[in-house]
Amino acid sequence: MNLPKGCIEYNPQFQDIIDQVVFNITNLYKSYGFKHLDTSIIQYLEGLNLTGEINKEIYSLARAKDDKDSSKTEYALRFDLTKPLARYVEENQFDLNFPFKRWDYGQVFRGEKPQKGRYRQFYQCDFDIIGKENLSLYYDYEVCSIVYNILYKLGIEDFTIKINNRKFINDILILLKVPQNLNKDIFILLDKFYKLELSKFKKELEILTSKEISDKIIFILNNTQNKALSELKPLFQEINLDISESEGFLELISILKFISREELSKIQFDLSIVRGLDYYTGFVFETYLNQDTKLGSIFSGGRYENLINSQGIKYPGIGGSVGISRLATYLEKTQSQESSIREGYLVNLNLQNNIILDKIKNLRDSGKIVSVVDLPFKKALKIAIKENFDKFVYLNDQNIIIEKQIT
Amino acid sequence: MNLPKGCIEYNPQFQDIIDQVVFNITNLYKSYGFKHLDTSIIQYLEGLNLTGEINKEIYSLARAKDDKDSSKTEYALRFDLTKPLARYVEENQFDLNFPFKRWDYGQVFRGEKPQKGRYRQFYQCDFDIIGKENLSLYYDYEVCSIVYNILYKLGIEDFTIKINNRKFINDILILLKVPQNLNKDIFILLDKFYKLELSKFKKELEILTSKEISDKIIFILNNTQNKALSELKPLFQEINLDISESEGFLELISILKFISREELSKIQFDLSIVRGLDYYTGFVFETYLNQDTKLGSIFSGGRYENLINSQGIKYPGIGGSVGISRLATYLEKTQSQESSIREGYLVNLNLQNNIILDKIKNLRDSGKIVSVVDLPFKKALKIAIKENFDKFVYLNDQNIIIEKQIT
Repeated sequence: MNLPKGCIEYNPQFQDIIDQVVFNITNLYKSYGFKHLDTSIIQYLEGLNLTGEINKEIYSLARAKDDKDSSKTEYALRFDLTKPLARYVEENQFDLNFPFKRWDYGQVFRGEKPQKGRYRQFYQCDFDIIGKENLSLYYDYEVCSIVYNILYKLGIEDFTIKINNRKFINDILILLKVPQNLNKDIFILLDKFYKLELSKFKKELEILTSKEISDKIIFILNNTQNKALSELKPLFQEINLDISESEGFLELISILKFISREELSKIQFDLSIVRGLDYYTGFVFETYLNQDTKLGSIFSGGRYENLINSQGIKYPGIGGSVGISRLATYLEKTQSQESSIREGYLVNLNLQNNIILDKIKNLRDSGKIVSVVDLPFKKALKIAIKENFDKFVYLNDQNIIIEKQIT
Repeated sequence: MNLPKGCIEYNPQFQDIIDQVVFNITNLYKSYGFKHLDTSIIQYLEGLNLTGEINKEIYSLARAKDDKDSSKTEYALRFDLTKPLARYVEENQFDLNFPFKRWDYGQVFRGEKPQKGRYRQFYQCDFDIIGKENLSLYYDYEVCSIVYNILYKLGIEDFTIKINNRKFINDILILLKVPQNLNKDIFILLDKFYKLELSKFKKELEILTSKEISDKIIFILNNTQNKALSELKPLFQEINLDISESEGFLELISILKFISREELSKIQFDLSIVRGLDYYTGFVFETYLNQDTKLGSIFSGGRYENLINSQGIKYPGIGGSVGISRLATYLEKTQSQESSIREGYLVNLNLQNNIILDKIKNLRDSGKIVSVVDLPFKKALKIAIKENFDKFVYLNDQNIIIEKQIT
């Protein structure tokens, strides 16, 4: 019986890289004051109700050998970490202190047809900040700061945080006199800007709007790429759009008053960043590694003002989700994985003669990794080499303990 | 919509203790040469087939909104970490080096009726060593050594590792001339020795065997409690049982040649230790905290020679499973949780005046935990106190940065 398709079990070497990445990321979340909340994998099906495609992908649970009709069940597996967070905040709203900051790391489940890059179960590693009634724009900046510091901590310095603001897109479309009912279709199209050929993108946009509007949107897309936030206003003026009164624009540039020069050098506006999920309302971001943009965004998220509404109280939030396995894949390719801070010893025990036992104890006491085997000499040595132990310890024919350097 | 019954979401304070316990335990596993294997939560239902009660508890999966009859599905959720390990070893048997040592930490799922101490989903944290064709008796000792060192690392020194060997029980029953077909029932009864009243236990044992045999078994149970391994032989002689030829006994005392005096002082033979699961064949153990035996065993496991058999090759194994939440519950009660190695700062930002930003950056750079809020002064101070921050940083009316010590 094999592992089902669409499920992942990494080999221990790659799992080590994953664990290092998760350790670094979650420690950084902690340093910003986030607490660990481990939300339940099992949730009420009814509580997960979402509109849209994701609904079809929810796995429900039944007792396999139940006598009763097991097709009906009230339980389901979570498909992301945000819905369980929303449920948790609603359930505990009068016990929590706001802003409530939590990180969560765990598996999510989707009944997708497995294919390259699409899995039935995979890890998410999220951080979110939930306010009560309102949530300072400072956190639009803090999100960028977290992404910046995590990547530096992982030794990655060549990356771009692409930011946008959904209100700003709305404002631009108003300035362009695009009917509001087209917004959703334009959002979906903007999201495909880098995936479609320009001629196809242009054609679809023209069908939706007009040649004139389409030309202006494409002008913005092309000319604001790789531009800093401070350069935006004059660019819009070139096509006679005055964005200085746009609330979305003011929100977008509000991060400028917090940001350091180093952080700013990694942040670029990009009109095509909209994020797929319905619930985002303002600031949105994606993060790309400049050496491997094909990997896709490795850190994404945004602000959602209306996801949690309970008993007349609004709980606006902002957060991000990091692509652990994408990052680990990149680090495996680009960084030398000497890793093991501690030396590893493979000790071959001789059951007939135990004088090696003290040695094992002393090595462990001094913080070494010590794996003990009881094998024929050659077999043990072969494993020590194959498994990258630093040293191989054994008893020779004269009952003397030999410590053989391998690497 | 609430959290479903039988599911767990700890508050962040308790989760912190859980995380510390897991960090210490998994690091200790690593120091013994175990590698992290993160087996899939989703497995083929067919691959989990087990005899016995557990079968009824397996959750199967279906796409909730699938048009087709969703009661039939080939996927299920794992109910322990051992079955997925067995599957992994079979699937990768020709690529792995043996002995294969892995640790796994993750959630398992059981369709139980939720009640106190019974959950629908909970974490297990296992280590196992799998050999090819044979597996040195040295590992019966190493298992004890791992349990001993983990508990010391967690600051727990008052505990007892109760050990037994299923072959030894068999041998005793043969010496007592008990028909072999009664073994299973006697095993089940032995397991209840501390749970049943003595009179009831005695009565049930007499019904199964005879008054004479029952008296001898109860003599062994009572007189070998709290005895060291070296004291066993003369005790059995008192009831005219010569165990010196018993293979199970020789296996049991084989750990004596490896063990240190300190470790030995924590290890006791107990005939009632049999472990519930069918697959154990030799060494078995449970671990109790002497200050809180009601907590139940906090670390249990044993040796299984026949769990994995593939293409004519036998893969004997040994392993253990630690009760993370029981340990965390005990530590929460008994140890002071000053915890936070790093100082925590709550900084109240003033969006109108940002001179506090450098302070935040400097604190984070020096390794402090810094949580930033943007709240009215009194509200921010209240949160700093409630959430146990060490220091509260704010800007006073004269725009001077004040660092107020809280704890």
